[in-house]
Amino acid sequence: MTHPAHFIELFFGIICLVGIWYSISNFNSVKRTLIGRPMRTAELHAQHNKLIWYIALPILSADLYSSVAYGPEAGMTELVKFGNDAKWYIIPITISTVILLAILILSYIMGVLAYPNGGGAYAIAKDNYKQRWVSLIASSALLVDYILTVAVSVSSALANVVSAYPIIAPYEVVLAVLCVFLLLMVNLRGVAESAKIFAWPTFGFMACMLIIVYTGFFDETRHGFVQQSTPTIGNAPQGMTILLILKAFSSACSALTGIETISNSVPIFREPRQKNAIKTYIALGTITAITLLGYAYHLYVKGISPNPNNTMLSQLSESYFGHGLLYQIIIWFTFVVLILAANSTFTGFSQLAAIVAADGFLPRGLTNRGDRLGYSNGIIALAAIASLLIIAFRAQTNALIPLYAIGVFLSFTVAQFGLIKLWIREKGSGWKIKLAINIVGAIVTTVVAVIFAVTKFTSGAWVVLIIIPLLIFFSLAIHHHYQNIANELKIDLKSFKPKGNRVITIVLVSGVHRVVHNTLSFALGLCNENILAVYVGFDDDSMKKMEAKWEEWGNPCRLVTLKSKYRSVLEPFSRLIKMIDEKEEFKSQIQIVIPQFIPKKWWHNLLHNQTALLLRLWLYRHKDVVITTVPYHLKK
Amino acid sequence: MTHPAHFIELFFGIICLVGIWYSISNFNSVKRTLIGRPMRTAELHAQHNKLIWYIALPILSADLYSSVAYGPEAGMTELVKFGNDAKWYIIPITISTVILLAILILSYIMGVLAYPNGGGAYAIAKDNYKQRWVSLIASSALLVDYILTVAVSVSSALANVVSAYPIIAPYEVVLAVLCVFLLLMVNLRGVAESAKIFAWPTFGFMACMLIIVYTGFFDETRHGFVQQSTPTIGNAPQGMTILLILKAFSSACSALTGIETISNSVPIFREPRQKNAIKTYIALGTITAITLLGYAYHLYVKGISPNPNNTMLSQLSESYFGHGLLYQIIIWFTFVVLILAANSTFTGFSQLAAIVAADGFLPRGLTNRGDRLGYSNGIIALAAIASLLIIAFRAQTNALIPLYAIGVFLSFTVAQFGLIKLWIREKGSGWKIKLAINIVGAIVTTVVAVIFAVTKFTSGAWVVLIIIPLLIFFSLAIHHHYQNIANELKIDLKSFKPKGNRVITIVLVSGVHRVVHNTLSFALGLCNENILAVYVGFDDDSMKKMEAKWEEWGNPCRLVTLKSKYRSVLEPFSRLIKMIDEKEEFKSQIQIVIPQFIPKKWWHNLLHNQTALLLRLWLYRHKDVVITTVPYHLKK
Repeated sequence: MTHPAHFIELFFGIICLVGIWYSISNFNSVKRTLIGRPMRTAELHAQHNKLIWYIALPILSADLYSSVAYGPEAGMTELVKFGNDAKWYIIPITISTVILLAILILSYIMGVLAYPNGGGAYAIAKDNYKQRWVSLIASSALLVDYILTVAVSVSSALANVVSAYPIIAPYEVVLAVLCVFLLLMVNLRGVAESAKIFAWPTFGFMACMLIIVYTGFFDETRHGFVQQSTPTIGNAPQGMTILLILKAFSSACSALTGIETISNSVPIFREPRQKNAIKTYIALGTITAITLLGYAYHLYVKGISPNPNNTMLSQLSESYFGHGLLYQIIIWFTFVVLILAANSTFTGFSQLAAIVAADGFLPRGLTNRGDRLGYSNGIIALAAIASLLIIAFRAQTNALIPLYAIGVFLSFTVAQFGLIKLWIREKGSGWKIKLAINIVGAIVTTVVAVIFAVTKFTSGAWVVLIIIPLLIFFSLAIHHHYQNIANELKIDLKSFKPKGNRVITIVLVSGVHRVVHNTLSFALGLCNENILAVYVGFDDDSMKKMEAKWEEWGNPCRLVTLKSKYRSVLEPFSRLIKMIDEKEEFKSQIQIVIPQFIPKKWWHNLLHNQTALLLRLWLYRHKDVVITTVPYHLKK
Repeated sequence: MTHPAHFIELFFGIICLVGIWYSISNFNSVKRTLIGRPMRTAELHAQHNKLIWYIALPILSADLYSSVAYGPEAGMTELVKFGNDAKWYIIPITISTVILLAILILSYIMGVLAYPNGGGAYAIAKDNYKQRWVSLIASSALLVDYILTVAVSVSSALANVVSAYPIIAPYEVVLAVLCVFLLLMVNLRGVAESAKIFAWPTFGFMACMLIIVYTGFFDETRHGFVQQSTPTIGNAPQGMTILLILKAFSSACSALTGIETISNSVPIFREPRQKNAIKTYIALGTITAITLLGYAYHLYVKGISPNPNNTMLSQLSESYFGHGLLYQIIIWFTFVVLILAANSTFTGFSQLAAIVAADGFLPRGLTNRGDRLGYSNGIIALAAIASLLIIAFRAQTNALIPLYAIGVFLSFTVAQFGLIKLWIREKGSGWKIKLAINIVGAIVTTVVAVIFAVTKFTSGAWVVLIIIPLLIFFSLAIHHHYQNIANELKIDLKSFKPKGNRVITIVLVSGVHRVVHNTLSFALGLCNENILAVYVGFDDDSMKKMEAKWEEWGNPCRLVTLKSKYRSVLEPFSRLIKMIDEKEEFKSQIQIVIPQFIPKKWWHNLLHNQTALLLRLWLYRHKDVVITTVPYHLKK
């Protein structure tokens, strides 16, 4: 396995990747001459610098088009379980997939016409159904599938690289998790905003796939459309049932994920934006259909079998181009495009989660933007779960496929039914045709979703079919909780006005030094008469010493010394708070002032603040007191 | 492997364990009739309810005596690499081990005489060497070895159980980590204080081992002292060098770890405590020596080979008793005693770490006692590192052995040299004999430590030999840091007195509701004139609404509304703080008041406090402001 040639190839391949990367990062300058300076999404929405359709095409297509790298392979993997004789089924299955693609694109064009400002399945369902759980089906199913998209895309990306450079095979899982981690970092830093520089590799990958398809036909005109390796056609192998053919079809349909991206992004198109979006849909659909049909046909002609150590895309390229430069370029473009698909999913997932959270159906924290504008919590959650999936499934794409695509088709179905309701309600020009299209779409996607659920149920789909309803249930529970809180917090502005509470300020002192000086200077500045300094000593000696020092310091405020038998600060402190609570005839609020060291080096935190931290955590859990931390910046 | 009989045996075995557990938990009542009600260690030190030596014996011996379960096996594992002909070396190696044991016990008896209040290697070194690094060698080496003790003991405990019930073999690592986790929980809850109820299983294990030794001799009188299985004696297999014999000896010496426990615990003995401690040492030494010699001899006679799936202790017991009740009792006592040894190490590690931390050589946090008196941070650190070791070494005892025991022998050496200095300095009755003993001890332990380092260097000891000096280096760096800080914080009591600072209080408000009412009532109670309520809005509309509501509420204080373009609270807040900082002609301190939801159920925290937490973390990192959190207890 570790022949020196492998190292040379790996080296060569890395140069290839660096080349692609260099091109991406310099695409800015290329693009600037083409379409002007880079823009932020916000600017895109605000101004009129919108995208012409053939520039939008590669930007919005990474997600859908990259799926051709694993879709046909997933279908073939199911088929070859019944031997070589079953391979020819890939042809009718791919034809069915392409028909399904056409129906979906047609349905989504209806979506574009209905929602010129862009509308995902969640928005469409929300707009057309009063029942909240309908839109929650769409959001939950999509969120689950987005997670799977990252896991599947990254696994498939790695599988292709490993096919070309088998010496890195032992590190496949580690490298896949590393890729997710890099995507996490990139997204936390908000690079997703400049997603446009990623158009170029998608074009490159499209070119690669079309070259493969063309080369295939060229090869076949020379060596015959039926070659030695071509399996016989028309045989029905033993044990092959309709259900199992449908299972292969379900797996192959993973090639259709990502179709919704364009309809979500109508506003970024140049006017007339709907027309441009539709153009893009038709162009993308045509290219994808050609690629799928051609690729699947050549796979059949060459009689290629799935191999866990060598993807079918890699095998087919090898058979045409050997292990040369063109092969390596194809592999690296495939890798980059699949990683870009995962990357765009990060944006999609965190934005959808933020929208649902803003409606009060997911934790509000998902609407928080980090330092650099990304929805950090959503991004982190996605990366964490996707990594766990990759580890659990050992980065095996075909092991993940059974869980995949059900969510997407569920959300397709919800969106179609939403559009049907819309056409019936609003009517408008040509509504009957639109309605008819969406009715066909709704029936087809429903049937496909049911086929998915049934055929893949035992191989893993049951997990998804449990998780989605659970997510819906939790979303409703969260909404209920937020509404309860909102009701609890409501007040009457006229009668319920804030008055100053009586506050007792307790300053924690550990001796007489600069930090205590800093803390006390703050506390005394609050002009509160009820200030108490508290010192916890472990023996009588230290307590007497402290009292003397305090005296010498001029008694800045009243000092209370407490003795701790067990060298614990918590216990005497807790006693004191209890005592004040019980003693006070009229209720007053206790404020505890704790100094906090801010060290020069972050790892110095390990050496400080332990008591303050412990005390704060403990007080938070056990007492109803206000906690104030006063920073002290260490100079060393 | 999964023969039904195995399930029945496992079931039977679990009943056995429950029996032992039940006896332990009821030992209280047994013991109460013997030696009165249970006592806390604190009470033990304070009062005169001290331990008679034969009760102290099992309490203090779990650590040393349990090592016989893996020591001889570790030695034999090294020997059989040279085939069956090398097995007879286990006899001279065990004899050498027992001689070393005698020398160590004699040396430690000198320690008992010198330090009647108990003294570990660290305390002895601290007392006799001005150079701090000498005592740090002892502490660092011991801390490293304590971690290894937990990993080795738990791994060995599991290896014995897995030998008896092979069906749980696939879960060995998981179960080992689970054991460490349970020990962590037990120790965080402070059960270690009542360690005395653990005396009984150690007695049980001693009885088991002595029964094995006795049965072995009985068997040999019937079937001959040289049996069919007995390897020939006196052969020197090919490739066997002195160095490799010494390596086997080093591994076998892991049976001697834990010898220091009695000398650390002199104060718990009944008066005359030194005489009683010495009695215990002699008794424990005798029993350990008999066990080691008898056990190793029988292993040799039966010609038992190490087997990763069946410990030698299990194999020997099987050969005498089959798989019956007695066998299962032996296995479970072995398991329990090894777990107890790991448990006592938790106390030892966290106490030593706390002592060293109190001297300023380790992070102060290690001196924090948790809710229930245990040194929580030390306990957690130990459990975490030991778990990682167990996972990294797949719970294979013999893989861990090369790293083990070097630390202990290093600390033995440091202690011996300390005692030599003491005798020379203080003299006293019979000092020449004592000095002679410790000189012999020092030479022997130095030689043994060097043998360990050399023979096990390449198999893993190098890691330990890097980590110990690193730990010493870090300890010194930490001490340096603490001293710098202490100097920085020193103030002149006469001239440097606290005066009240001018404080600007900023209250973060998110609307007008009950929580804001609660927060404002506190802030107004501080009698501070400079109070500012700040509202961050995402559009002009919400800001105007807020201003109107505030007006209607009667303007409790000045309201500032800030607009955020990116739905982020941080950015406008940061601008405000910067503005105040720059505007203020005379320096004033900024206090930020943030409400904090305290939900009824802990997991509701996921749904709240995200903004408050984010803001607090961000302010902590970036700004010099005082942060006050005002709790609001949610009712729902």
